Formats: sequence, structure tokens, C-alpha cells
Amino acid sequence: MRPKIVLFGDSITEESFGEGGWGAALANNFSRTVDVVLRGYSGYNTRWALHIAERLFPAAEVGDGGGAPLAMTVFFGANDASLPDRSSAFQHVPLQEYKQNLHSIISFIKKRWPTTLVLLITPPPIDEDGRLKHPYGDNPSGLPERTNQAAGAYAKACIEVAGECGVAVIDLWSKMQQFPGWEKACLRDGLHLTSIGNKLVFEEVVERLSQGGLSLETLPVDLPLLADIDPRDPLKAFQD
Amino acid sequence: MRPKIVLFGDSITEESFGEGGWGAALANNFSRTVDVVLRGYSGYNTRWALHIAERLFPAAEVGDGGGAPLAMTVFFGANDASLPDRSSAFQHVPLQEYKQNLHSIISFIKKRWPTTLVLLITPPPIDEDGRLKHPYGDNPSGLPERTNQAAGAYAKACIEVAGECGVAVIDLWSKMQQFPGWEKACLRDGLHLTSIGNKLVFEEVVERLSQGGLSLETLPVDLPLLADIDPRDPLKAFQD
Repeated sequence: MRPKIVLFGDSITEESFGEGGWGAALANNFSRTVDVVLRGYSGYNTRWALHIAERLFPAAEVGDGGGAPLAMTVFFGANDASLPDRSSAFQHVPLQEYKQNLHSIISFIKKRWPTTLVLLITPPPIDEDGRLKHPYGDNPSGLPERTNQAAGAYAKACIEVAGECGVAVIDLWSKMQQFPGWEKACLRDGLHLTSIGNKLVFEEVVERLSQGGLSLETLPVDLPLLADIDPRDPLKAFQD
Repeated sequence: MRPKIVLFGDSITEESFGEGGWGAALANNFSRTVDVVLRGYSGYNTRWALHIAERLFPAAEVGDGGGAPLAMTVFFGANDASLPDRSSAFQHVPLQEYKQNLHSIISFIKKRWPTTLVLLITPPPIDEDGRLKHPYGDNPSGLPERTNQAAGAYAKACIEVAGECGVAVIDLWSKMQQFPGWEKACLRDGLHLTSIGNKLVFEEVVERLSQGGLSLETLPVDLPLLADIDPRDPLKAFQD
């Protein structure tokens, strides 16, 4: 059985196999070593994620190798950080509950799969201009339903949780804002990723996985590579 | 457990999660319904594929839902059709053996998983000029190691096998040659797919799956869609 890396998150995860997406790039990077499993749920916050975790990741089953993924990205917060008095209020989760929910999600994963490398990813920064130009449904208020300041507070909380739980974290909120013109270069609607934004996430994830010992250098290849097959006796490579 | 679609093939499958790739596009299409599992092995022919099938697709295990994929694409032939007296001769498989190997692979899948929709894909056409401009390693002969005529013979054999076994098939060799300027538009090195070539494969696969009853219209969505969550009482959607 090939090992797995699970991507658990909201729409930024769900659409990560789209054109230039970070999830597809990961699957391509690990095309002979790891199955990249997509568990992205558009619009979901940590409260909803916690509700579905038990159903989504059932207890280890006989015969599936224990089912423990090598790694799992946990990428929530962009919806939690929706402002409570604006058009996406129903997705809002208060900051303290967001922290508690992340703690609970990590505890759940760690209890189920103690060996799994958990990698938190903070919400990305928000381009408020982009959000006003690309509203979801009606937003007659003229005010963005997400702000960069709020996203930053949730990002900070996410990093704190990572520290408290001793898991890896990507500070996407800070990292992305180092990119010149990040507002339009990295975000296509003020929230979701462009190709450049996707590439940034991909590179950060690959780096953190590598720091955790999961890379093309360390992971076994599934079946012989063409370069390792002797042209004079190809079938030799397939003997056990 | 989410159902699976397995992509079994050679390099055109292995690299299908690259930029604009047909595998990634499938995974994106089915992002909330199906796991698309990549089993592509660069350079492999049907002889080698047959050797690894048992190891690659172990017998159904307790607890993995029987393990039967909804569908499996079987996409070999581009390497089998390498000419026996040119630079990729070690990958060549004679036409009759290619047919027999495809039969055996289909029998294997059908025996293991009787309900799985098997979808054969013929090798693509070959742009011989592209092959000469982008040789693999040394090719001092000045002759392409693959020809479009040979690929066509293997494509025809593949279609015959599909008919004999009663499984679905995509005649990629013919379909692609209907595209104006297919040599450079669909193939980046005379053999592997460009974005346009990938899109063509993606669309054909989606259509055949749909004809077999596997589409976004028929497959259940994994957990409530945002549009089905009541903003006034979101958690109601997560009650069993």
C-alpha cells in the first residue's frame, strides 16, 4: 500500500487540484511515492470541521495498514475569520473558539494516528478590494466580509496553537505579504489563490514535509524507475 | 469511505497531475465525490504492467469497503509500440502479446473487482518530427524510435480487445488526429501531452465515465455543500 498525505481544509484546499493548484502540484511531486488525498470542504470553518472529523477519518481499519497518513495539512481559518456582522457572518467562529477547535482537531488526529506529521497552515492574507469586487452573493453593505486584519489575528492564533501542540505551521498570512503586489499577484478574488499563490503554498508545504523527513530523497519509490530497469533484462527488475 | 477511480498507465498517466494534466483535472472535477488514485509508471509496457498488477492491486482487504474502485483507466501501448529495431527496443512488446496482455490485465481487474468500470485508452498518435527533436538519451540513427503507423496498429488492437472484453475504450489515436495541427498542438515532444492534449483526454474520460453512470449528477457528494447549509442553523446540516 502506498502511503498517504491528506489535505484537510476549506475551499483553498478543495480547489487545490485546479489549474496550477498546490494540491495537484504535491500529487505530481510525489507521483511515484505518495497518494495525496483531497479532503477540502468549501466554506467550512473549524467548528464544522470538528463536527465531521470523526466521520471523515474513521478509526483505523483492519488491513488498511493502520490507515495512518504520513502527513496531514490542516488549513482552516479563512472562513472562521469572516466578520461576525457582515455578509458571511454564518461562517464566523470567534477567535478563542477557533483556537480551541484547532486544538481539538490536532488532538483528534494525534490520538488516531500518533505518527502522522500534522502541518497547520494559517489563513492567507485578504485583499479587501478583491473581496468587494468579487462578493459571494449579495453584499449591499459596500463593506468587505473579511479583512486582512482579522485574517492576521486568526493566523497569529493558528501559529500559537502550533506552538502549544508542537506541530509544524506555515505562516501563510505573513509569507504571502512578502510577495510584491501580493494582493493581485497571489489572490484572484481577494481570498482564493492564483497560480503564484498556489506555487507559494506548494513550495512551503514541500519544505515543511521535507523538514519532517518526508521528501523524494527519503520516501521509497513505488516499483522500479525506468532508469533502474536493465534494458538487456527488464523483467529482472520485477523479481521480488 | 469515498469511492476511488484508479488511473493505471505509463508516463502519460504518471505525469497527469502536472500543470494542466488530465489526472489533476479529473481529481478537481470529482473533488467532493471521488478519490482519483494515480498509478502511472513511466516507460512501462503491458508486459511489465502485468508483472506488477498483483502487487499493485492487492486482494480486497477487510475494512476497505472491498476496495473496488468505481472505475479504472488502463492506458498502455505507447511503449509497447516502440519499434523493435530502434533506440527504445527494450520497451517494445509484439502486437499479439500486447493484445494478450491487455486481455490478461482486464481479466485480472474483472476477477478482483467485478463491478469496476474498466476504461481502456489507446496510445496517442506519434509526431515523428517531435520524437526526433526530443530523443530520450542517445538516438544517433536519425530515425524515430516510435512511428505513428505503429502506434495506430496498437490503437486498433486496443479497440479490438475492448470489443472482445466488452469494456469501454477511448480511441485517442484517432480522436487526437482530428485536432488541427495535432502534432504540435496536442503533443509536446511527439508523444507526451500538452495542455490541449491533456484537456482532450480529460473530456473523453469524463464522457465515458458519465456513459457508465459515473458523473457529478449521479455520485453522492461527500458532506453537505455550502449551498445546502442553512445560514440560520449551520450545524443542522451535520446531524446524521
